[in-house]
Order: sequence, then structure tokens, then C-alpha cells
Amino acid sequence: MDSLIQKIKQTGNPTVVGLDPKLEYIPEEIRARAFAKLSAEHDAFECAADAIFEFNKGLIDALCDIVPAVKPQSAYYEMYGWQGVRAFWRTIEYAKSKDLYVIADCKRGDIGATSEAYATAYLGNTNIEGSLKRAFDADSVTVNPYLGSDGVLPFAQVGNNNHKSIFVLVKTSNKSSGELQDLIDKASDRPMYEIMAKLVNTWGADSIGENGYSNVGAVVGATYPEQAERLRKLMPNTYFLVPGYGAQGGTAKDVAKSFNVDGLGAIVNASRSIMCAYMKDGGDYQSAARNEAVRMRDDIMSVIGN
Amino acid sequence: MDSLIQKIKQTGNPTVVGLDPKLEYIPEEIRARAFAKLSAEHDAFECAADAIFEFNKGLIDALCDIVPAVKPQSAYYEMYGWQGVRAFWRTIEYAKSKDLYVIADCKRGDIGATSEAYATAYLGNTNIEGSLKRAFDADSVTVNPYLGSDGVLPFAQVGNNNHKSIFVLVKTSNKSSGELQDLIDKASDRPMYEIMAKLVNTWGADSIGENGYSNVGAVVGATYPEQAERLRKLMPNTYFLVPGYGAQGGTAKDVAKSFNVDGLGAIVNASRSIMCAYMKDGGDYQSAARNEAVRMRDDIMSVIGN
Repeated sequence: MDSLIQKIKQTGNPTVVGLDPKLEYIPEEIRARAFAKLSAEHDAFECAADAIFEFNKGLIDALCDIVPAVKPQSAYYEMYGWQGVRAFWRTIEYAKSKDLYVIADCKRGDIGATSEAYATAYLGNTNIEGSLKRAFDADSVTVNPYLGSDGVLPFAQVGNNNHKSIFVLVKTSNKSSGELQDLIDKASDRPMYEIMAKLVNTWGADSIGENGYSNVGAVVGATYPEQAERLRKLMPNTYFLVPGYGAQGGTAKDVAKSFNVDGLGAIVNASRSIMCAYMKDGGDYQSAARNEAVRMRDDIMSVIGN
Repeated sequence: MDSLIQKIKQTGNPTVVGLDPKLEYIPEEIRARAFAKLSAEHDAFECAADAIFEFNKGLIDALCDIVPAVKPQSAYYEMYGWQGVRAFWRTIEYAKSKDLYVIADCKRGDIGATSEAYATAYLGNTNIEGSLKRAFDADSVTVNPYLGSDGVLPFAQVGNNNHKSIFVLVKTSNKSSGELQDLIDKASDRPMYEIMAKLVNTWGADSIGENGYSNVGAVVGATYPEQAERLRKLMPNTYFLVPGYGAQGGTAKDVAKSFNVDGLGAIVNASRSIMCAYMKDGGDYQSAARNEAVRMRDDIMSVIGN
């Protein structure tokens, strides 16, 4: 987690830009250029994937000196087929070439051997006939903990071995997150998300870095500030990835609950508000995204201080 | 779910073959052929993906008249990069051309809009500049319910609209599944997996087909036969996808708990035991896989009767 923290300190900006590029978010001129190639040799998925990558590239160019990280969300690439997944890979590669920290938002999780395969895909080395190759090579991946320790630990282990991190879903930002996550465990009289917090502490215990944070982070939604405040206390060594700011209703005051007094401890995500800023503010999409990213940074910094 | 049930009745076989093709499972001759192409133009991922598809194709050819369904597990394709994901897509296409029911084992799940994108990717139509295209076009996809109803319902809805099904994780087969799934909810005095079962019933209530089963199935591990027996009673209209038979320790007697008295209600998965049968039994991998699939079918049919 130290390399993410270093980039946050360098930019003075604890935010991450979500790259969830639905085709309708992409400026007309980029789409027109990509779809001019549409033909028997270049199908609609390929053109869509090209448009997505061009859009992402422009966003990355506009933002890479003022934000520490990007978070491509896998679903919005998979819906454009394997060509979309290729655009996901190209986006990761390009973002890393611009020195951004890349959180692959995949929310994977399975039984042990399968989680190890997923961890290998996003954080590790795939052994291909004896030579080691990196498939997606992100810096971090989000993980779903429904299967318990043996579904999460392979991610933590592959992460540690490759100096990378993971973020485990603890309390998600969506409306019905409480259906499972807020239920009270009878034995401990604690909500499930606190049980999960305890497990996250355990999974990260052997990877606490020089800034005091482990390689096993937690996803904690901005839309539940009270739970975030409680979780912040329960997980002193855990970095939070905070979705739900902006469009989903979370305010800067809400996300402040996820930070520690050192001004560290959380990175706040915004996706559509930055990607689509040009639709609201007019002008070119790159300047609009940059202006919105600066506005968001200043909004959040104003409540967490230094 | 009716179209899966029809194929199960036609083949007299309530099993599904998992296609989790790690490179080391693939016979030497297939690998040698694929890697002969390795060059500046054809990288290791492409060769690996070609080997995987050839192996899957051979398995599908050997099994398509005696099994109703296959279940490619996404992780084992993603670890070979976007080329691996392309092999995943080709495998789905080929299996469907051989009239197999395809369960994409992806265990996806996210907030509503993102779950809708995943559902679109695997079950629906992606709108590309006004024309509708199918990205992966499986018949069913596995879903992780940690985020609650608004993370699952988009899958159910896209499934219903496309005459397709989903299988929601309820009680998984792995050792530490109980860390979360077995905790007792204080309010209802019921384990989490029963709370989830109730939600699955709700999510499927509007899609019960002519055989009495909804389009929202459940993943229930063979390794927990007591819980399976209880869940079978709690979810009379839910089809079970049952992992954990064979290598993970589940026996035919264990999986029998997941069936209803009509001989329906469950489909049992085996992956490595079939894919790698040739390593144990010798001979060509296609005959070995077919023999093992027949043995498994007969083993399971012997305990569930007709």
C-alpha cells in the first residue's frame, strides 16, 4: 500500500478516478473516428473497444499529473466482449506508463485454487510453458469476501509476493448493501460488516508497511458515514477505498469519516462526474475532467485538512 | 431454467462439466501444436489461448451427446489475458453450437448499474451505436450476492428478458465458506445461507417455469450435505448448481440431498476429474473424459433414481 500512499502524497490528492467508459459517455468525435473503421474486418466490438481506449487515454493524459490513481471497472469492458477486455488491458498498461496506480475493480472471489487464478491474472505472473508473463498487471484488485478466508487469502498472498494490494468489500455503497452486510451476528452481537472488518485486519496483519497500512484494504461506501466512522476505528491499519461520493449521494463531510487524523487512510472514487463533466460543463472533455478532478480534490482536502 | 431441464432429461444426466483448463491439464500434443506458432507475431498468451480452445473443443466433441451442460470458469481464462478471454468466448460459442447449455462461472456482482453491465455482458445485448450485439452470450451466469438485492436483480431481470438463468452463491463448497455464510442472524435466529435462500426465492418468484423451477438458481456445495438437505426444503422452486463432487470430497450420497423427489432440482459439477481423466486412466483424453463422465452420471443416477 506504500506505493499508493506515496502517489497520494506526491499529488496531494486522495482520490481515484473510476474509468467506467460506457459508450454513451464518450464524445461524439472519438466515437465517429473509431466507428469509421467499421467493416467486415473490424466489427462493432472492436470499434467500441477502440473508442473506449481513446477516451481513457485522453482522460489519463489530462489527469495523470494531478491524481494518484485510476480504477477501471471491469464490467464496462466485459460488456464489449473480449475486445472490451483488451481495451481494459490497454488502459491498465497506458495508465501505468503515466505513473498512475491502477486498481482493477473486478470484485472477484472464488474457492481457493480459483481465487489464486484470478489473483494471478490481475496481480501476478502466469506460468506459460515455464516462462512467467503478466496477464493484466494492475497494482491492486477489488475482492468479494462471500467465500471467506480461503477465497481471499490467495489474493493477499499473490499481492504480497508482487508488492501489490487488494481492497476487500466490507460495507458497500449501494442501497441494499445492508440486506446481508448489516445483519447482526448472534454470537458476537456485531454486524456482518464488523465481522468482515476483523477478518480484513487478520488478512493484512503480515503486510503492514512503513506508513502503517497493510496491503489488504477495504471498500467502505461514502453513503454510510456512521458505519465508516465505526469501521475507521476498528481497522486502524487498513486503507479504505471509498465509492459513493457525488452521484451516489456521499458528500465530502461523509467521506471525511474514512480518513485517519494523519490525513491518510482513504482514497475516494469518482467516475461519471469526472468522465462526463464535459456534458454538464461544456468544452472539451479533457479540460472538463481536469477541472472537476481539481474541484473534487479541493472539496475533499477542505474537510480532511493536511 | 426449463431449457436446462430439457437437456438434463434428454441426456438422462444431471451433471455439468467444468471447463477450467489450466495449461498443465492440456495434453502435450495439443500444447506442442499451439506453441509451434510462438513468434513475434504470436505471443505466449495467444498460443496458450489456442491450446485451451483446442482442448475444450475436443472435450466438447467427446461429451456433447452425453452431458447437458458445460461450465467454463472465467478465472482460468482471465489468467491468460485478453487472449484467454477470447478463448472463453470461443468456448461458449462452440459449446452452444453443439447444443450444450453454457453456465459462465464468473461469480460477478456489483452495485446496480454495474451488475447490469455484467448481466449484459454474459446474458444480454450490448447496445453499440444503436445495434444490439451479444458479447459472451452464455445461457446462465453465476452471481455473488454480497451486495444484496440491487446487485442481483439486474442479473435476474436481464436473464428473464433473454430466457436465461442465473445461479446465486448461497452455500459454497470451500472449507471457510462458513466464516460468513454460517453465522447466525440474531433477528431471525437463522444462518446467513438461509437468509440468502429466502432472498433467492424472492428474486426467482416471478420466473417459475413449466417444470416448477425459477430462473434464479442457487450454488450449494456438495461438501455440506446437511445444509444442502435443509436448503432443498427451503427452496422448493430453486435449481441447485452443486460443486464439490469428487476432488473436493462430495460423494453421490452427499449430492443426492440436493435433488427433489422428482429426480430434478440439481445439476452436479465436476471439472478436473473429467478434464484430467486421461492422466489417471491413460489413453486419449477424449475417451478418458467420456468414460469418466459416464461413470459420474451412473454414480449420481444410482442414488437419485428416476
